[in-house]
Amino acid sequence: MIKAFGYAAQDATTPLAPFSFERRDPRERDVQIEILYCGVCHSDLHTVRAEWGGTLYPCLPGHEIVGRVTRVGSHVQKFKTGDLVGVGCMVDSCRTCRSCREGLEQYCEVGFTGTYNGPEQDTGGNTYGGYSDVIVVDESFVLRVPDGLDPAAAAPLLCAGITTYSPLRRWRVQPGQKVGVVGLGGLGHMAVKLARAMGAHVVLFTTSPNKREDALALGAHEVVVSRDSDAMKVHRNSFDFILDTVAAPHDLDSYLVLLARDGAMVLVGAPAEPHPATTVFNLIMKRRQLAGSLIGGIAETQEMLDFCAEHGITAEIEVIPIQKVNEAYERMLKSDVKYRFVIDMASLKQESAA
Amino acid sequence: MIKAFGYAAQDATTPLAPFSFERRDPRERDVQIEILYCGVCHSDLHTVRAEWGGTLYPCLPGHEIVGRVTRVGSHVQKFKTGDLVGVGCMVDSCRTCRSCREGLEQYCEVGFTGTYNGPEQDTGGNTYGGYSDVIVVDESFVLRVPDGLDPAAAAPLLCAGITTYSPLRRWRVQPGQKVGVVGLGGLGHMAVKLARAMGAHVVLFTTSPNKREDALALGAHEVVVSRDSDAMKVHRNSFDFILDTVAAPHDLDSYLVLLARDGAMVLVGAPAEPHPATTVFNLIMKRRQLAGSLIGGIAETQEMLDFCAEHGITAEIEVIPIQKVNEAYERMLKSDVKYRFVIDMASLKQESAA
Repeated sequence: MIKAFGYAAQDATTPLAPFSFERRDPRERDVQIEILYCGVCHSDLHTVRAEWGGTLYPCLPGHEIVGRVTRVGSHVQKFKTGDLVGVGCMVDSCRTCRSCREGLEQYCEVGFTGTYNGPEQDTGGNTYGGYSDVIVVDESFVLRVPDGLDPAAAAPLLCAGITTYSPLRRWRVQPGQKVGVVGLGGLGHMAVKLARAMGAHVVLFTTSPNKREDALALGAHEVVVSRDSDAMKVHRNSFDFILDTVAAPHDLDSYLVLLARDGAMVLVGAPAEPHPATTVFNLIMKRRQLAGSLIGGIAETQEMLDFCAEHGITAEIEVIPIQKVNEAYERMLKSDVKYRFVIDMASLKQESAA
Repeated sequence: MIKAFGYAAQDATTPLAPFSFERRDPRERDVQIEILYCGVCHSDLHTVRAEWGGTLYPCLPGHEIVGRVTRVGSHVQKFKTGDLVGVGCMVDSCRTCRSCREGLEQYCEVGFTGTYNGPEQDTGGNTYGGYSDVIVVDESFVLRVPDGLDPAAAAPLLCAGITTYSPLRRWRVQPGQKVGVVGLGGLGHMAVKLARAMGAHVVLFTTSPNKREDALALGAHEVVVSRDSDAMKVHRNSFDFILDTVAAPHDLDSYLVLLARDGAMVLVGAPAEPHPATTVFNLIMKRRQLAGSLIGGIAETQEMLDFCAEHGITAEIEVIPIQKVNEAYERMLKSDVKYRFVIDMASLKQESAA
């Protein structure tokens, strides 16, 4: 076994704290990775605090991992020692169901193995994520981080990036189409950059007028303050696609009516409480769709990383030492982050050595 | 002008009653039609009683019309005297917007002209529907009723038929796919027949156990009583497509969870009150869609009629004289109809002559 060290929560109400544990020795197809950076996703907080139910403790979160390969199993084909790699939300799946065979491991019909909080395919046991110094992952779930991407700023691509890229591709966003992005947080700011790079006309919807300048700088062509009903009205029946990244309950009808005929609004934020009920007429009258989307498959995640390298896209980040992670959670709850915290694992090494 | 006679409501609270009025003389591209049969749609009742708002009075409903051409304008190309024809929910649209140019007149961006309750494209005035002896319609909005279809039983195809056919086609229902139909009323019984003819495995959901035999006889392969949670559970994650024809508010989540990955549920019933809020996780976790659909375009309506002729499909109807239409409304409210009332306009002639 490999000695590992990270930050974990022992229950739903105590902060993350130093935690020593063990990883498995690399098996034939495993890659051992020294973790350099790990993004802080809102899902981490939801899981640590058991807000979605089903949290296993100790809970060691983190699924936006960038690191360096330090060892590979004898049958590993895609990676070698020294490669810069990424690990996202999944480290395994059943690999035999229709979704897995189609490269849509995120919809594995048995259930994928989360990078943290399990369940492992064989034992059903817990998994420990990226707020740690080392991880061992089957090469099928390891991504190549292309040259030219800053490793720290690339980390959030592994969740925030793919979660927004996948629906933009699935709903075939094309150059010249009008795309709305609701919310300018970790997901929303990635959606703005990606939709812009795909050639869309991008409109960012926010409740915060003070995010206007940022949104424009990130690539939005227009910014609409969603509480301004006149500004909203201008855009009625005009959008091909709207990506809603807001995880708090909010009125969906005010966005559905902005969709053109056959337009789709896709939800990638998962509020604990449902959104208010929508009006059926808004769907019927223009054959509009409301849909959901969950991260993305492994092949598509690689495609997204390559797309980001080609277009020079990474996340906007604030790098923190791991000792500030609990404080970062509190700031994240107040939306006081532009636009993703990323933990520098060098800070963990110092602690481990101390 | 042409003298016309039918049944109309003078306000939201009085019954339909005999009403004399005038139709325009056929213009160059108009077809004058002697109405033989007109189906009774739930929309007629909603409009007559102003339950959706915006009702113009006198209100003379009816948009499931089958009749015989008695006169054509000088430039009419598609029809001649003696042809058996149909008129559905629309008699005009702007004809220039993108939707109209694409043959999707039902989504006309200016707004189509309803067969009843207008508004006319030029004047914005009222239109009078099919509960009458004669109608004059531009040939672009007249359908050919193929040989071999019973004229009375074909009438409901013009609304109930196309409203269910269009989403089945739009969402590309294929042979072997598993299709659910929610509700066995005027729309639902057509959906069962059409989905079956398209080669789908059809499951009918109903709250009424006593509809089981009928549903099977109409073509459903399986019938599930939706209040039986064990029976519902068997079908989780298995449907490619569900068509929800129920116009009363009901729980959508219990059907959304029955959809397989990338499955779609399409609503064609328009309740006055919204359905209860749905759970976002049910959309996200399998990339499911919730959508709406409104009748169908003119070209697609002709395609549907031809499909029905090819497959020997018409509605299950109870023919009534127009003098029973108010009674039929009350019975419709109690779901006491199998499965569509159709008015025989011969009854109107006798009254007119009296």
